[in-house]
Amino acid sequence: MSDPKGKSGASGSEGPVPKAVVTRLSLYLRELEHLVRDGHSTISSSQLGARLGFTDAQVRKDLAYFGHFGYPGIGYRCEELIAEIKRIMGTDQQWAVALVGVGNLGRALLGYRGFQQRGFRLVAAFDTDPRKIGDCIEGVTVYHLDQLPEIAQRETIRLALLAVPATQAQIVAERLAAAGVEGVLNFAPVTITLGEQVSQIGVDLAIELEQLSFSVANRESAAAPGEPPDAAADA
Amino acid sequence: MSDPKGKSGASGSEGPVPKAVVTRLSLYLRELEHLVRDGHSTISSSQLGARLGFTDAQVRKDLAYFGHFGYPGIGYRCEELIAEIKRIMGTDQQWAVALVGVGNLGRALLGYRGFQQRGFRLVAAFDTDPRKIGDCIEGVTVYHLDQLPEIAQRETIRLALLAVPATQAQIVAERLAAAGVEGVLNFAPVTITLGEQVSQIGVDLAIELEQLSFSVANRESAAAPGEPPDAAADA
Repeated sequence: MSDPKGKSGASGSEGPVPKAVVTRLSLYLRELEHLVRDGHSTISSSQLGARLGFTDAQVRKDLAYFGHFGYPGIGYRCEELIAEIKRIMGTDQQWAVALVGVGNLGRALLGYRGFQQRGFRLVAAFDTDPRKIGDCIEGVTVYHLDQLPEIAQRETIRLALLAVPATQAQIVAERLAAAGVEGVLNFAPVTITLGEQVSQIGVDLAIELEQLSFSVANRESAAAPGEPPDAAADA
Repeated sequence: MSDPKGKSGASGSEGPVPKAVVTRLSLYLRELEHLVRDGHSTISSSQLGARLGFTDAQVRKDLAYFGHFGYPGIGYRCEELIAEIKRIMGTDQQWAVALVGVGNLGRALLGYRGFQQRGFRLVAAFDTDPRKIGDCIEGVTVYHLDQLPEIAQRETIRLALLAVPATQAQIVAERLAAAGVEGVLNFAPVTITLGEQVSQIGVDLAIELEQLSFSVANRESAAAPGEPPDAAADA
């Protein structure tokens, strides 16, 4: 741990790390991996920021939550910073992940290649439909939800993807918590409530589409139809 | 438009609006809708911020990009701010959306209830597999990708969900752009490159899972096994 104050982990800093900082760490990680693939070995905070649309101060401040990673006159060593961010994110280890709900979305998640690359291994799927139990989809076996406690223990399942109908989300999430699962990624379009010992993140796909409509709608207003491109400059 | 400087739309502010601000607008919108459902008619910036883990200054600064929406001694009127944010996001209008790629993920997206609620109407699906052409899934007809230009014009399709295999994403995105689609939400785990006239957002589901593992891993280090809870305080 490179934190000079001898603190250990993110929880050692003052107060919890803002969620936005953690999101940016994921973006830094991906950009650093691109850089390494393109043959770069070091990068400055301003270069890294510029590639993602952040200031150099933002990059430095975000990383300062977790320690000192830069070298004067050099910047960051890409491979080293990749390893540090992975350690911070917990993805320097493998996570055993369960999927609950083998509908269309569940099948899509089982086939999603992006998880494995990041250290997330889907080890079991669960459903209550007897026609699906025993199926093997993308190499993952479908078990009855009643087997969750047993399989969760056997496979050391710590994270779960919740892809059940909205009406089932809360009750299934509680069963996951009871089986010792520590984190739930909820794809159902409904808010679930769990105790403090379980982390949860809700995935709202409509937010992404809304971000897209903002971008399209506001590009439009930048050059409104019928208005000459230079009109704004005259206002 | 309530901007006192008489500027029009987000593009009128100094420089582009940071992506993080737009993401937070989506979160404010959802929280305001919860508040209205719970019977609230007004809320202060500090209350709104506290519910989402942001400071009141952050809330005020974010909204100030788009105008003045608060009332002294009252705060924000929830219904009014909801309408303003929808206008800013472009979701005060209906958007005709196409899906390309009718695999498991595509089928899941066709069945996703969250889009319609936000003003996004899936009007057509496209694939190249002859066995799928002509199918009707969740009320949406599957057309051959070759019909894209014709259907896009007829249905005034402006946004598209790209759920094709990674190897096809770039070429299909180019066909969407050529058919006049203005925004692409890319679910393929690959970066696509389009001209400036098309907005695009990549959905990386592994980022969400990474955020979850951060949360679990760092809760863990806050109370490491075998270490008494007070040990950190003695360091």
